Amino acid sequence: MIDAYRNTSKKAGMPPGSLIHVADFNEEDTRISVIDYGLIDVEEPSVETVEDLLKFREKDSITWVCLEGLKNVEITELIGKYFDIHPLVLEDILNTHQRPKFEEYDDYLYIVLKGLSLGEEDVASSEFSVDYEQISILVFNDFVFTFKEWKDELFLPLIQRIRTSTGRIRSLGSDYLTYAILDSIVDQNFVLLDSMDERIDEIEAELLSDPTSNTLVSIQHLKRELINIRRSTSPQRELLSAILRSDHDLISEKTHIYFRDVFDHVLRISESVDSYRDMLAGLLDIYVSSVSNKMNEVMKILTVFASIFIPLTFIAGIYGMNFEYMPELRWKWSYPLLWVVFITLPVVLVTYFKKKKWL
Amino acid sequence: MIDAYRNTSKKAGMPPGSLIHVADFNEEDTRISVIDYGLIDVEEPSVETVEDLLKFREKDSITWVCLEGLKNVEITELIGKYFDIHPLVLEDILNTHQRPKFEEYDDYLYIVLKGLSLGEEDVASSEFSVDYEQISILVFNDFVFTFKEWKDELFLPLIQRIRTSTGRIRSLGSDYLTYAILDSIVDQNFVLLDSMDERIDEIEAELLSDPTSNTLVSIQHLKRELINIRRSTSPQRELLSAILRSDHDLISEKTHIYFRDVFDHVLRISESVDSYRDMLAGLLDIYVSSVSNKMNEVMKILTVFASIFIPLTFIAGIYGMNFEYMPELRWKWSYPLLWVVFITLPVVLVTYFKKKKWL
Amino acid sequence: MIDAYRNTSKKAGMPPGSLIHVADFNEEDTRISVIDYGLIDVEEPSVETVEDLLKFREKDSITWVCLEGLKNVEITELIGKYFDIHPLVLEDILNTHQRPKFEEYDDYLYIVLKGLSLGEEDVASSEFSVDYEQISILVFNDFVFTFKEWKDELFLPLIQRIRTSTGRIRSLGSDYLTYAILDSIVDQNFVLLDSMDERIDEIEAELLSDPTSNTLVSIQHLKRELINIRRSTSPQRELLSAILRSDHDLISEKTHIYFRDVFDHVLRISESVDSYRDMLAGLLDIYVSSVSNKMNEVMKILTVFASIFIPLTFIAGIYGMNFEYMPELRWKWSYPLLWVVFITLPVVLVTYFKKKKWL
Amino acid sequence: MIDAYRNTSKKAGMPPGSLIHVADFNEEDTRISVIDYGLIDVEEPSVETVEDLLKFREKDSITWVCLEGLKNVEITELIGKYFDIHPLVLEDILNTHQRPKFEEYDDYLYIVLKGLSLGEEDVASSEFSVDYEQISILVFNDFVFTFKEWKDELFLPLIQRIRTSTGRIRSLGSDYLTYAILDSIVDQNFVLLDSMDERIDEIEAELLSDPTSNTLVSIQHLKRELINIRRSTSPQRELLSAILRSDHDLISEKTHIYFRDVFDHVLRISESVDSYRDMLAGLLDIYVSSVSNKMNEVMKILTVFASIFIPLTFIAGIYGMNFEYMPELRWKWSYPLLWVVFITLPVVLVTYFKKKKWL
Amino acid sequence: MIDAYRNTSKKAGMPPGSLIHVADFNEEDTRISVIDYGLIDVEEPSVETVEDLLKFREKDSITWVCLEGLKNVEITELIGKYFDIHPLVLEDILNTHQRPKFEEYDDYLYIVLKGLSLGEEDVASSEFSVDYEQISILVFNDFVFTFKEWKDELFLPLIQRIRTSTGRIRSLGSDYLTYAILDSIVDQNFVLLDSMDERIDEIEAELLSDPTSNTLVSIQHLKRELINIRRSTSPQRELLSAILRSDHDLISEKTHIYFRDVFDHVLRISESVDSYRDMLAGLLDIYVSSVSNKMNEVMKILTVFASIFIPLTFIAGIYGMNFEYMPELRWKWSYPLLWVVFITLPVVLVTYFKKKKWL
Repeated sequence: MIDAYRNTSKKAGMPPGSLIHVADFNEEDTRISVIDYGLIDVEEPSVETVEDLLKFREKDSITWVCLEGLKNVEITELIGKYFDIHPLVLEDILNTHQRPKFEEYDDYLYIVLKGLSLGEEDVASSEFSVDYEQISILVFNDFVFTFKEWKDELFLPLIQRIRTSTGRIRSLGSDYLTYAILDSIVDQNFVLLDSMDERIDEIEAELLSDPTSNTLVSIQHLKRELINIRRSTSPQRELLSAILRSDHDLISEKTHIYFRDVFDHVLRISESVDSYRDMLAGLLDIYVSSVSNKMNEVMKILTVFASIFIPLTFIAGIYGMNFEYMPELRWKWSYPLLWVVFITLPVVLVTYFKKKKWL
Repeated sequence: MIDAYRNTSKKAGMPPGSLIHVADFNEEDTRISVIDYGLIDVEEPSVETVEDLLKFREKDSITWVCLEGLKNVEITELIGKYFDIHPLVLEDILNTHQRPKFEEYDDYLYIVLKGLSLGEEDVASSEFSVDYEQISILVFNDFVFTFKEWKDELFLPLIQRIRTSTGRIRSLGSDYLTYAILDSIVDQNFVLLDSMDERIDEIEAELLSDPTSNTLVSIQHLKRELINIRRSTSPQRELLSAILRSDHDLISEKTHIYFRDVFDHVLRISESVDSYRDMLAGLLDIYVSSVSNKMNEVMKILTVFASIFIPLTFIAGIYGMNFEYMPELRWKWSYPLLWVVFITLPVVLVTYFKKKKWL
Repeated sequence: MIDAYRNTSKKAGMPPGSLIHVADFNEEDTRISVIDYGLIDVEEPSVETVEDLLKFREKDSITWVCLEGLKNVEITELIGKYFDIHPLVLEDILNTHQRPKFEEYDDYLYIVLKGLSLGEEDVASSEFSVDYEQISILVFNDFVFTFKEWKDELFLPLIQRIRTSTGRIRSLGSDYLTYAILDSIVDQNFVLLDSMDERIDEIEAELLSDPTSNTLVSIQHLKRELINIRRSTSPQRELLSAILRSDHDLISEKTHIYFRDVFDHVLRISESVDSYRDMLAGLLDIYVSSVSNKMNEVMKILTVFASIFIPLTFIAGIYGMNFEYMPELRWKWSYPLLWVVFITLPVVLVTYFKKKKWL
Repeated sequence: MIDAYRNTSKKAGMPPGSLIHVADFNEEDTRISVIDYGLIDVEEPSVETVEDLLKFREKDSITWVCLEGLKNVEITELIGKYFDIHPLVLEDILNTHQRPKFEEYDDYLYIVLKGLSLGEEDVASSEFSVDYEQISILVFNDFVFTFKEWKDELFLPLIQRIRTSTGRIRSLGSDYLTYAILDSIVDQNFVLLDSMDERIDEIEAELLSDPTSNTLVSIQHLKRELINIRRSTSPQRELLSAILRSDHDLISEKTHIYFRDVFDHVLRISESVDSYRDMLAGLLDIYVSSVSNKMNEVMKILTVFASIFIPLTFIAGIYGMNFEYMPELRWKWSYPLLWVVFITLPVVLVTYFKKKKWL
Repeated sequence: MIDAYRNTSKKAGMPPGSLIHVADFNEEDTRISVIDYGLIDVEEPSVETVEDLLKFREKDSITWVCLEGLKNVEITELIGKYFDIHPLVLEDILNTHQRPKFEEYDDYLYIVLKGLSLGEEDVASSEFSVDYEQISILVFNDFVFTFKEWKDELFLPLIQRIRTSTGRIRSLGSDYLTYAILDSIVDQNFVLLDSMDERIDEIEAELLSDPTSNTLVSIQHLKRELINIRRSTSPQRELLSAILRSDHDLISEKTHIYFRDVFDHVLRISESVDSYRDMLAGLLDIYVSSVSNKMNEVMKILTVFASIFIPLTFIAGIYGMNFEYMPELRWKWSYPLLWVVFITLPVVLVTYFKKKKWL
């Protein structure tokens, strides 16, 4: 199953712009948290209703509104109403099957992408799994909205930085904040790739020591995860190059270089994913070869046993015949002589096989 | 057989623009249904002849004429005559082997694409099949024609929306209607992909539990279907990017964003199809490996049996010989001793094989 | 052998423009046929010498000169002289190993491409073969030359249409005629692809019922043909997009849409060829798997027989030994008891194997 | 080993422009030959020193200086000095590991590419080998230098043509000469490809009649050669399209069409190389399948013999037992009856196997 | 593990521009060496602190500052401060997981790429390994900084040239020096590829003589290294084409041709890497086939032995039966006759098998 993208069919046939939250799991209540900062002050007011946000519009300071959980559709609807957001954008925010993209509107920018994180329950077991979360970012002049599917600590380090730092982040505008948010999301992928790297190393070690059919299942599992990761990360390249090409007023010349930095990270991630794909293909080749090799080994045992004992059994069979006129049966040395044959023949055969490199 | 595209050879050598309906199946009588709407009214007059349509031309309202079944060629011919449509367009409408494309003419736009739906008879059985229907759309200033191959309920939800909604769809022009029609057609593909997703999951489960040669046939069947789906959906990308690039008067600035939305859906579909292709390739790898593994298993049984019993049989064969001078035959303990050998030898061998990881 | 392209090495080292006819087979005498038509009249004069053609130059009507067979080099040379054609073009006409291309000159256009047809002798047998014919088209203001390698009926339907029709073809200029010629040539490929489609279906049926090594040879044969077809058809895409991009006076705005139509056909052909390639790759996978499966079957028989009878033979061997002290030999029920073993042991083993899914 | 490209590491760390001849083999003394021609005269003066060349600079006629063998570095150095050539160009001429390329300088053009020819010693044996020679061309207004690695007869036909012809080549400038030189070099590849074509046919015949592991080695050998040929020929495409795009004074409008002709040849070669690659991949598939098939055959013999004789041996073993109470042993017809079994059982088994398509 | 790129996850969540050195190994103290040269003088002052560098800023001469080892972060920080370098650049210099790239700033250029060298410990053993070092270059008007990870002799030949040469390098500016540095780094790859070439030749020889499962491991090892090399070298192509496209003041028209030369080298390296990839794929094919072949050989021995001796044993078994009425047992010539059968039957069988090409 391609988690992050299927089941949109639920909406097929509905009017565009119908605000219905389409998601498969993790339905959580929406939590609104706000951080409002300028060069001097940082404020973190607690906000209950969307209307509470309106007062920050008059202020010069940057206001970052972070919504976690998309269940309460009316909150998004209200934000849409107060901040005059296009219905299609609202629809995209709520439908968590969007392709990463960047859209410019007159007063605001809309960015949507996937945040990838290691699946929690699987950190313990050795199986690798990935959770996909859709994150939407709305960038206004001094307002930034982020819509996340779940409550987690993804933005915590960034929030800490805003609280404590007095440097760049506090002096620059909403575009720099947008950059910082994107950077947090994108850099999380490196954690993922490191974990995948380790898993690949494990599988390789397993392959060289003792490959089982489980190893194959693991390779295929990883391959599938990689296909999904690729689907989520590769459109990020377009997304960022679209941001870089944009000449929207909301993106100042000065922050361009920062977005270029994220772009470089995205390129590196995308190249890593391609490398991992090649490596997994290589692992599959090793697996198939090692299965063949094992079969070869087994065949060789069979061949040694069969090739040595079948002729001997035949010889024994000859003298088990009940003919009346078999002079050898009466000779005194026949039996000891035959033992000599029983011992030398295998030696000769094995030596011959070894010489011929068949064994 | 590549359903949707073959057999055009029937027409090879005919004059271009000859209005002959080229299709392979489902020849149905043409049904004309009309829905005429403006901000205030919705009318669904029953229409018998093409001439009945002409009176809607004077009206300001948007008129959507939906023709289902292409058998009655003269209807298309008449529409061509009254609405001054290029003969090649008429030919393309009737020849159901068109590549999806978008063409701009002075007064109208011509869009042709494939509508994909799950093959009906196969919903019950587990085999996955797809029906391809060519859908042509002619967009005039306040007239939209759609030509479908069959009578089905594809546009029903959209028609319902027009009837009941008083919102966007009723206030916007024929370009928005075109968008809504395209959206209906494209979103149907998600249903298809979900169904394919399920089928892939089924096959994978089958592969891991009990792969048979039927599984291979299923994989190949799906692969073929995917090749066909790909052929129908991947040109939709071009089609929509052509619409987006177009600066024809009939497409207003305002609906651009809606077409961009369909474009995103098309991209997602096309990426899904690619992912499924990768997954099917992975399934084939598993199949081949599991066949190898099974052979390995079988070989191992053979090897165990042969390697253990062939030497024992040989030993039994020795004492079945009829030499007169075989002292062991007369010893009292030979036979019980031999039983000891018959029992310990297999144990030793199996232990050795296991240690060597051959078993 | 790649028919249509090899053996040009004959000419390596010759001066460019040397008019030597390079072809491998089917050397036929050149036949000249002329059809001269305008809105009102159609004339089909018989023409003996190139000079006979000159009188049509003064006339306003469109003159189509069709040369079949390239053996008589001097005819081409004379046409070159009278119509002032570049020596390299003449060389390309005669050397039948050209890559499809479109070249614009001041007074004329030069188009060369491959006409593909089903190999005649092979229609009967089930083996699929393709004949490649180089067709050159020279387009003047009201003159069109076509140079074909063989005499066949490729253009017959088109000629019929000119004779009988009073429509478009008679009223439009040499560019429309060129379109009609190209259309005839390109549409022939659909016939070919249909035939290939059938052949693939046959092979697939064969694969699923009874694959032999002949099936493999057939797949490879088809694969090769497909490589060749691909080489001939895929440059047609470039050719037609070059025509579409061209703004030469000889191609009027009005016929553009017709060339676009041929372009669509060419795209469809090229996509079909790609699909067939994927399908053949799939067939090969099935073949390889079915060979493996067959080996598995054979191995299983061997394993059943060996695993069941080898232990039994061993048991029989034990009581074939000639020890004096074998108490069982004297017991009355030993022999019947052993028969019980001989019958139950196989039953037990087979049951066990089946349970383990080894059989 | 990738002949034509390795070992440049010798130069790693040296100053750019250091004139050291880097080549692996065939070190021959440099031979200078000059042909000086105009519309009327052709002169072939013997030239000893580079200074001898200077007098041709004043003349209007075209002078073609052909240097064969690169050992005498000082000659190249002197030419560089007198004709004011950039040190990097001189370095590229002497270092025979250049990638094919085209460079424009103020007064001259620099073209470097690989000349491919069939390896001499291998024409007799059936093994296919290719010699790669770097050929540099320096084009001045009425001077053309060619630098070849070896003395051979590659340019002989061209020189003959200059001597005898009074046509185009004698009347056109140094650009036409350059074209003619390029044409000679490129057309040689057709000879090579024909030879490869034959070799592929041979291997295919071998594969279908009697594939040995030698066949595999041959396929791999050809595959490697093809990789190398591809590396040398595919950049020629870029080279020629660069020439075609160039608007340097030294390339007149008139010769453009000739370069386009070479470009077409280069495209054809490059497409042929791709086709051969596909074909070799196909041959490998056949090889692998035929090895599998052979194993199948061998397994079948084993299975027939084992499956038929193992049960029979068991039956014989039963009546070889020495029980006292075996009533059958005393019956008169037991033995003949058993013979009936010995004969009918194999017949039954073989019939059954055949029916099951196992044999 | 993909050495050069993983573990960046350490930095995930940190503020951009935080100067923390991210590297995995080879932590060495920073060594600063300076070479200051003009047309006349070369000076190599020993420098202790960053402040010592400042005095060279006033001088007209070119100053090349080479820092080896990145451990002492404060040095980089100070350089950043004094030379006014963007914090993101400083961060990229210290974080050794950068993608090769070229960035233009107002006063300076920033180039970062990977220097590849043969892993030292592995030169002795036959296993091929590569060390990746990140090299950053900062180009000012008459200042060039290079930041390397380790102390090695990579730039020694270049430094020697500056010391001794009085030619180009001494007369041209910092852009030429940059070129010379890039050239040193890129040409090192040729050494690497030569070594890989040798290793591939070794493996091929091994494959044809005596393939073991170690050979497979070697192939996979090489494949992995190649994936990594590819990741480091292929972005160099973009890097150099970016330099070539740049019109920054710091890159003069005159040095363009030198960068083009490096570009050619980079293209050649990248094509070589692709060729090696194809070759390794070919080696894998041979490996798999040779394993199959070996299995075939082993199966044949088994088949010969089994097929010959099993029937013979059966015959011996017949006459080992204890029936009272077996007339043959009493005939005098039965036994010798049977020996005739025992000898002729194998001969007949082997001859038959050979004729059928099964052996």
